[in-house]
Amino acid sequence: PLIALLPGDGIGPEVVAEARRVLEALDLDLTFESAPVGGAAYEALGHPLPPSTLDLAQRADAVLFGAVGDARYDSLERAFRPEQAILGLRKALGLFANLRPAKLFAGLEDASALKPEVAGAIDLVIIRELNGDVYFGEKGQRKTADGRREGYDIMSYDEDQVRRIAHVGFQTARGRTGKLCSVDKANVLETSQLWRDVVIEVSAEYSDVQLTHMYVDNAAMQLVRNPGQFDTIVTGNLFGDILSDQASMCAGSIGMLPSASLNGTGKGMYEPIHGSAPDIAGQGKANPCATILSAAMLLRHSLNAAAAADRVEAAVTAALVAGSRTPDLGGALSTSAMGDAVVAKL
Amino acid sequence: PLIALLPGDGIGPEVVAEARRVLEALDLDLTFESAPVGGAAYEALGHPLPPSTLDLAQRADAVLFGAVGDARYDSLERAFRPEQAILGLRKALGLFANLRPAKLFAGLEDASALKPEVAGAIDLVIIRELNGDVYFGEKGQRKTADGRREGYDIMSYDEDQVRRIAHVGFQTARGRTGKLCSVDKANVLETSQLWRDVVIEVSAEYSDVQLTHMYVDNAAMQLVRNPGQFDTIVTGNLFGDILSDQASMCAGSIGMLPSASLNGTGKGMYEPIHGSAPDIAGQGKANPCATILSAAMLLRHSLNAAAAADRVEAAVTAALVAGSRTPDLGGALSTSAMGDAVVAKL
Ligand SMILES: CC(C)[C@H](C(=O)O)[C@@H](O)C(=O)O
Ligand SMILES: CC(C)[C@H](C(=O)O)[C@@H](O)C(=O)O
Repeated sequence: PLIALLPGDGIGPEVVAEARRVLEALDLDLTFESAPVGGAAYEALGHPLPPSTLDLAQRADAVLFGAVGDARYDSLERAFRPEQAILGLRKALGLFANLRPAKLFAGLEDASALKPEVAGAIDLVIIRELNGDVYFGEKGQRKTADGRREGYDIMSYDEDQVRRIAHVGFQTARGRTGKLCSVDKANVLETSQLWRDVVIEVSAEYSDVQLTHMYVDNAAMQLVRNPGQFDTIVTGNLFGDILSDQASMCAGSIGMLPSASLNGTGKGMYEPIHGSAPDIAGQGKANPCATILSAAMLLRHSLNAAAAADRVEAAVTAALVAGSRTPDLGGALSTSAMGDAVVAKL
Repeated sequence: PLIALLPGDGIGPEVVAEARRVLEALDLDLTFESAPVGGAAYEALGHPLPPSTLDLAQRADAVLFGAVGDARYDSLERAFRPEQAILGLRKALGLFANLRPAKLFAGLEDASALKPEVAGAIDLVIIRELNGDVYFGEKGQRKTADGRREGYDIMSYDEDQVRRIAHVGFQTARGRTGKLCSVDKANVLETSQLWRDVVIEVSAEYSDVQLTHMYVDNAAMQLVRNPGQFDTIVTGNLFGDILSDQASMCAGSIGMLPSASLNGTGKGMYEPIHGSAPDIAGQGKANPCATILSAAMLLRHSLNAAAAADRVEAAVTAALVAGSRTPDLGGALSTSAMGDAVVAKL
């Protein structure tokens, strides 16, 4: 299988390098090809997602993505900003389902701002729709009748979009504790009302899953008050953006958390949930675990290699239990030394 | 001055009664008139915001609102659901600025799910725009070209709407520590891009205020990681809905937090941030402090009675320090006994 490596900006290259070493150590028949993305690609080729990079992503069986972004590019026209590479890849590859597990790793209780007994109970996954909502609707700036500047963005979902992400939600819940919470704002939004109606329709096919609904403002409260109440959460693109970052932070170290963005046929893009952290780039201070765990998700979801995925996840846990820590976790290991520690436990 | 009391559903009547007692104990020249709202109004008069209630709210100098909502009304057509009363009042009275202070009260450190050192640092106010955004844009259900059901909602802000809430943000920050954080999603939304542009324009008039910008997903993270970094946050209607509830929960007991919704001329609606809590309604278990503190905001913002507002706030603090606690705070006082405790400290 061909793995596309898109390291990107900031600490992206460092953490992707360690994840590649872990994948190589597994003795699977993997080929790797790299391409620039984000600010690095804008510098090299004039576009955050150059055709050659998109082509590689399309040819590959799976994409391992580092991180993109740097304040330097914030003033560029929107189409050239690094984040457009992420949005462009999601759309071009049809990656409609974002899976974001959040759990507290044993031994890292101190890393969370939540009380240990609250944070320790976190073991949830957020399923975020990634191809629709206000992200991809018509948008622009225009003038009102009396000449005022106005910005607008159309939020929408159609029933097919909701149905396919709902199925991912129900199937994920079925493989876990059987509890699915659908988050929306149906008391205000028609998009949410359709969302809720369709999720309820789909639930007829999953009588073994217990479905609940929660408004997004309440969900943001409950993720602080008692995150242990959640197992699987399914929600739209915008609410998922906010809640999945919030949930990650509740679980403590964002240096530990992976993500997968999937289409319906096993193709996926895998990336750590943290950003490009330009302030520590190139210094060997970044925690590679989130990217290594993203590689494990890649094995599981795109390469059908669950046993190898389990091995990688167990190796990360074992390295942590043995006391291996990068600076974000209060330790002193460099990025590559942490990679070594994980490889040694494989 | 005439105060409209809109007790609403669930625990609304109980908590509003205590706030009224506190206001009466101040010996100001206040007149009170009550009217039903929410589910109670739907039962009595067939509409959650009957014309007679709206008329009272319009005649009054300020509105003290309890809470609305009950699962019984969730299946009603949207226009008849209790929440529509809140949205209708905001729109009809032009209440465009929602002020939500969040701070941890001394002695209540245990109530927060955050570690005491994190929660203890919370002392912020969220200024949420309340008359625009995806809440009030065109919305509906329609069919796509090939016949699929679709829900849509138009998100938008024009420059005047952003400008007037930005001024509230800057002025609030100026009266506090001089730090204003504007929260948006300008990397994806054109509405947010206009928001950010206009906030920057307005900042020229407030050189004494330090303005920063943060994406909403990052703000949701930072409110968990280190809420003490924030002083004043200004944001749109939808993001404000989510973040203000999240921030309240970080500060611990939602039974303690007030809110104000203001128009540009001192008229305002004041309400506790908690809901109607039907499960404990009528049992004297509700904490009236959030409503009492809302009455203090009413004194300050609508009646220009800052000294009286200070007195009420000091009385609530003194009652807490003396150990007065309702069940949500681990105590055993009834709603009215807690009201007594506050009145006694006036
Ligand atoms: C960079 C940005 C466009 C992106 C998003 O909002 O989806 C990011 O926040 C994420 O969650 O992957
Ligand atoms: C009840 C609902 C319409 C309302 C809102 O979303 O604004 C509530 O959540 C609030 O924050 O006051």
